[in-house]
Amino acid sequence: MTDLFSFELLAEDGNARAGIFHTPHGDLPTPLFAPVGTQATVKAITPNQLLELNAQLILSNTYHLFLRPGADLVAEMGGLHNFMHWPRPILTDSGGFQVFSLSDTRKVDMDGVTFKSHIDGSTRRLTPETSIQVQEQLGADIIMTFDECATPDDRTYIERAMQRTHQWAERCLQAKSRSDQALFGIVQGGIYTDLRTQSAEFISSLGFPGHAIGGLSVGESKMDMHAILELVNPILPKNKPRYLMGVGSPEDLVNGILRGVDLFDCVLPTRLARHHAAMTFTGRLNMMNASFAHDPRPMDENCTCYACQNFSRAYIRHLIAAKEMLSATLISIHNIHTLLEIARRARQAIFDRRYATFCAEFLANWHHRTSKGAL
Amino acid sequence: MTDLFSFELLAEDGNARAGIFHTPHGDLPTPLFAPVGTQATVKAITPNQLLELNAQLILSNTYHLFLRPGADLVAEMGGLHNFMHWPRPILTDSGGFQVFSLSDTRKVDMDGVTFKSHIDGSTRRLTPETSIQVQEQLGADIIMTFDECATPDDRTYIERAMQRTHQWAERCLQAKSRSDQALFGIVQGGIYTDLRTQSAEFISSLGFPGHAIGGLSVGESKMDMHAILELVNPILPKNKPRYLMGVGSPEDLVNGILRGVDLFDCVLPTRLARHHAAMTFTGRLNMMNASFAHDPRPMDENCTCYACQNFSRAYIRHLIAAKEMLSATLISIHNIHTLLEIARRARQAIFDRRYATFCAEFLANWHHRTSKGAL
Repeated sequence: MTDLFSFELLAEDGNARAGIFHTPHGDLPTPLFAPVGTQATVKAITPNQLLELNAQLILSNTYHLFLRPGADLVAEMGGLHNFMHWPRPILTDSGGFQVFSLSDTRKVDMDGVTFKSHIDGSTRRLTPETSIQVQEQLGADIIMTFDECATPDDRTYIERAMQRTHQWAERCLQAKSRSDQALFGIVQGGIYTDLRTQSAEFISSLGFPGHAIGGLSVGESKMDMHAILELVNPILPKNKPRYLMGVGSPEDLVNGILRGVDLFDCVLPTRLARHHAAMTFTGRLNMMNASFAHDPRPMDENCTCYACQNFSRAYIRHLIAAKEMLSATLISIHNIHTLLEIARRARQAIFDRRYATFCAEFLANWHHRTSKGAL
Repeated sequence: MTDLFSFELLAEDGNARAGIFHTPHGDLPTPLFAPVGTQATVKAITPNQLLELNAQLILSNTYHLFLRPGADLVAEMGGLHNFMHWPRPILTDSGGFQVFSLSDTRKVDMDGVTFKSHIDGSTRRLTPETSIQVQEQLGADIIMTFDECATPDDRTYIERAMQRTHQWAERCLQAKSRSDQALFGIVQGGIYTDLRTQSAEFISSLGFPGHAIGGLSVGESKMDMHAILELVNPILPKNKPRYLMGVGSPEDLVNGILRGVDLFDCVLPTRLARHHAAMTFTGRLNMMNASFAHDPRPMDENCTCYACQNFSRAYIRHLIAAKEMLSATLISIHNIHTLLEIARRARQAIFDRRYATFCAEFLANWHHRTSKGAL
């Protein structure tokens, strides 16, 4: 595995890091944001459009593909890269997060989880071993251990879930058979510093080629999220990439990088696009806002993406009003570009040893709610 | 106008013709199929994807843009080319066809039509003069006279509608003020040969730079459609392009070209795509067909479009089942490619003086319903 996967740490600036994670389908420059293609497609855009955006890594969801179209079919079609025609690296999650989100219809035991499919209500089961088997059939470059992501406010349950996550991490390592996939271990432990320390130390000890921090951005405060990142990242080995799962708002990206995170993924850019919200470097714009009806400017005047180079706010607002699919396509292109660009600029700032300034300036300009057309 | 617009007839083969229509936004090689962008967007695809398909001309609908976002706004944004970012020629219809489709909510008088908006129920009015005014604000290269498209089976009404169409054609010519737009006259007359003859002769006499045949593909038989084309086209002047409005199934394209038509438009490729049907050179495929679930072949094995070069039937079927927008995008790309390619091959066959053979072979392979996965 060390032949196919390795992490080069190229620069450090405080806790922020710039590097390259080498994978069989190409090099990943870090810090990096990965758009999400839940059902083997990043919603509303083609792989060609993703390449034009210079996206490097995409995430796809084991839970969804396990249920539909099924891992056997994807394997039969030559694996996920071939099936969805994405030539660059792919990461699959383990299914754990989605399964545990089905709080009413799942039953956890020490061996795995039984749950009802959200598609047809059928009873299905995932264990550490079957999650790895499915992920091996899908064939992503980076795969994840099967973990239990518990609700953030129940310490007793979180501790039990963490213990289970640790046992399952070892079983996933045992179950893994392909040498061309990097299996990342996941740190859990909620917002409890002693549990997070214990989890980071245990997971680090297992020799994974990369580490993920799970169970954040699930309802805890930003302050708690930052505190956990400041606690966990220094425990994780420096020479391996660190992945903050499911996190990807602009401010979380910038704050995560400041605290030593290398990889991010989030459905936010494409989900917001379908709800008419454009992400900019200063906040969100609700593209349906009446003030945009006659606005000839692009979504973001400083943006170089295809959507901003060629289409006005007035046109995009018209597309939304007319219920035209192109609105989701154009806003998705723009939103993904924005997150990729934030990561690219952050990387350059780290090389230039001015990341703290970059971060402070970004956050000073950032507004959760903009005054005009806010969502 | 003769400076900016001219039709070069390059080859004839029987009644089939190959030529070039020169316009301010570029040359149109004929025979040509124009995809439809009803609301200033060809549904589910970007202008860049249309350019990759080498589409030359697109049609947009005056009725829809008049109601939303309004011609004033489009003009304020620099016209339709700029608003929707389409650098090549655009054709707008006059609104007549859509208005007359609103059979329950419109009232025709000699001066124009009053109708209720399908969007908000408001009372709106179009006349020959306002249709031209709206089309001048939209700024397409080719614009159309305001006509009355009557139901095909009522001779008395069709005759009255034809007379009105003739008077309105003269009023449109009078109303026209921009020199950088070519106004095409429209022949009506239903399926009645004497009326069609009269209409073709009258419209031809008015000196339009191009002529359209309206009121076909509205319920009449294929045999009637062919008979009308065989009657009308020889009356229309040879040195001007002939446009068969709203027609664009593969077999209608091939049959129309055989009978001397140069331009076609139709919503069929994008509408079928949203209903999961792929157009091939032999018929339609319903991409949801169960037999495609494990099919690694592209929609059309002989196709060079982006969708067929990169994606399997199994993947497209998965996208449809998962309700992913990408299915409409990929099938639209393929279907538009198919119609553009039929026109390109037809053009070459005319240059090669083998159009009759091309047409016969195409129709021999063509099945309205295919045996497998038919729609």
